[in-house]
Amino acid sequence: MSHIYVYSPSGAVRDRAAFRRGVKRLQALGHEVEIDPAALTTHQRFAGDDATRLAAIGRAAASGADVALVTRGGYGLTRLLPELPYRQLARAADKGMRFVGLSDFTVLQLALLARTGTISWAGPALLEGFGAADTADAADGHGGKPGAATPDEIMLACFDDMVSGAGEGTGWRLPASDLAALANRSGSLAHRAPLWGGNLTMVVSLLGTPWWPDVRGGVLFLEDVGEHPYRIERMLAQLLHAGVLAQQRAIVLGQFTEYRLAPHDRGYSMRKVFEWLRSQLKIPVLTGLPFGHVPTKVLLPVGAKIDLLVEGRDALLLWGHQH
Amino acid sequence: MSHIYVYSPSGAVRDRAAFRRGVKRLQALGHEVEIDPAALTTHQRFAGDDATRLAAIGRAAASGADVALVTRGGYGLTRLLPELPYRQLARAADKGMRFVGLSDFTVLQLALLARTGTISWAGPALLEGFGAADTADAADGHGGKPGAATPDEIMLACFDDMVSGAGEGTGWRLPASDLAALANRSGSLAHRAPLWGGNLTMVVSLLGTPWWPDVRGGVLFLEDVGEHPYRIERMLAQLLHAGVLAQQRAIVLGQFTEYRLAPHDRGYSMRKVFEWLRSQLKIPVLTGLPFGHVPTKVLLPVGAKIDLLVEGRDALLLWGHQH
Repeated sequence: MSHIYVYSPSGAVRDRAAFRRGVKRLQALGHEVEIDPAALTTHQRFAGDDATRLAAIGRAAASGADVALVTRGGYGLTRLLPELPYRQLARAADKGMRFVGLSDFTVLQLALLARTGTISWAGPALLEGFGAADTADAADGHGGKPGAATPDEIMLACFDDMVSGAGEGTGWRLPASDLAALANRSGSLAHRAPLWGGNLTMVVSLLGTPWWPDVRGGVLFLEDVGEHPYRIERMLAQLLHAGVLAQQRAIVLGQFTEYRLAPHDRGYSMRKVFEWLRSQLKIPVLTGLPFGHVPTKVLLPVGAKIDLLVEGRDALLLWGHQH
Repeated sequence: MSHIYVYSPSGAVRDRAAFRRGVKRLQALGHEVEIDPAALTTHQRFAGDDATRLAAIGRAAASGADVALVTRGGYGLTRLLPELPYRQLARAADKGMRFVGLSDFTVLQLALLARTGTISWAGPALLEGFGAADTADAADGHGGKPGAATPDEIMLACFDDMVSGAGEGTGWRLPASDLAALANRSGSLAHRAPLWGGNLTMVVSLLGTPWWPDVRGGVLFLEDVGEHPYRIERMLAQLLHAGVLAQQRAIVLGQFTEYRLAPHDRGYSMRKVFEWLRSQLKIPVLTGLPFGHVPTKVLLPVGAKIDLLVEGRDALLLWGHQH
């Protein structure tokens, strides 16, 4: 069906079995999979030194593939921000290539948006989406969590939609607390607003830098993994205090997972953080978006103009055709 | 000797035995200790709700004490930034009150510096400096680590120097790798440069907000606790990319403690992070400053004009008398 180029811009792939499993599953779905020569390179915790990973990103952009899929997140793109081939990536996207990833990949997506306005896709990585990662990958926080034994059906359907260009949006059921907070405010919450965001830690890590996408009137989606609620709150507070949140039409919160509460928390929780956030904002804050470091996740076009609707208990993010 | 006001602007005090021990030790040193009525208040993980902690900060400023000492760090001041009584704190400091703390307290110190130019002191907190905290405090990351069984002698001497106003600076032995990196550059590295910084996580959490102290030509000191080297690097990269680091005369790194390397790191380490930082900067990067979440720490006047010297293997931070 499609030509998928697999490359490693961030953390080193340790679980080669998961890597092979992921490649085979993509092939079984009918895709032609091209593996970057440095996909399994390692240097310290990285998938090769900085020059190696920069070259891999350049090869992905030059591959002519339909989809460029990262093997995993981790940490590593932050270092490369000053030297990423933004124009080359933008030209590849213009010709129809879809760049897909999450977690550490967020900074490439937002920097590319800031520099060139290019749309990319928040979605699975090869290992956590199509393979199953080992504990070494799980140990390093961002983007390496073990995947389910088989790829999630909803994620696969959304991936298909993206590949075929047939997808026009996504929807999810809102929790009752969201509906109470919306206070009967329903219908259209945003019309043709730029969708942006990704991993909260990575979004916040761009504040103050030349790669901050100064999106106003947008819909900001956020997720994170392995961060205690007080750390999530501190990062949301930074975005709030920087004026970023109030400039959006809506905030859409995805999945915040793999943190551990302590006895010291005494009732402080992620829910309290979301309540605190709502108390600080007049714009709608929706939760429950199926996106994050979880198997069941949708694919989202970062930088695309979207409509955000609430109909009954359902939220709808609609982007029409994106080619 | 001195009137010390003890209050809780951040996390809840769980270890009351350590609190009492800290108070008694200050009294045994000859100080009059005044305890804020809400010092032991708790609300979730906080030392009281936002209004309670704001009121405590106001009482500390109004107390007429010589020193206002936080009980501990934790998390909580970020929420209060829009409402802190900056003018009241500045007036109290003008009259001779010294505000002392670390960790979460960094954001108050830097916001106060940004708003009013007021000097405050990076130093111990009551529990980790003068008491011994329990595991509940240790569990929450910033500012609650267990202290030594007895207060550290060097910290006590520096605290005395601050209280008496007799302290004129501090010095420490540089590691050999620093001397190699300095490449025979010695003597004066900075003259009458503003000293600023504190906990790296908290410093970075102010980027892009109205409380960012836009210090140029300064000496930036940094420490952190419980953060893996890749997270330290990501935060340093944000300061680097925001242009903050290159605008300083020097960077002085304190103690980075309580992180755990993983097999996945394969040689990546805090030392590699410091080497990476040096490769990105032309200004001197010194390490080994005895400051951080460790018993042996000096007190540092945040916002004061200082001289930074290297003499042989010794670094000297000199500020003259600060009243």
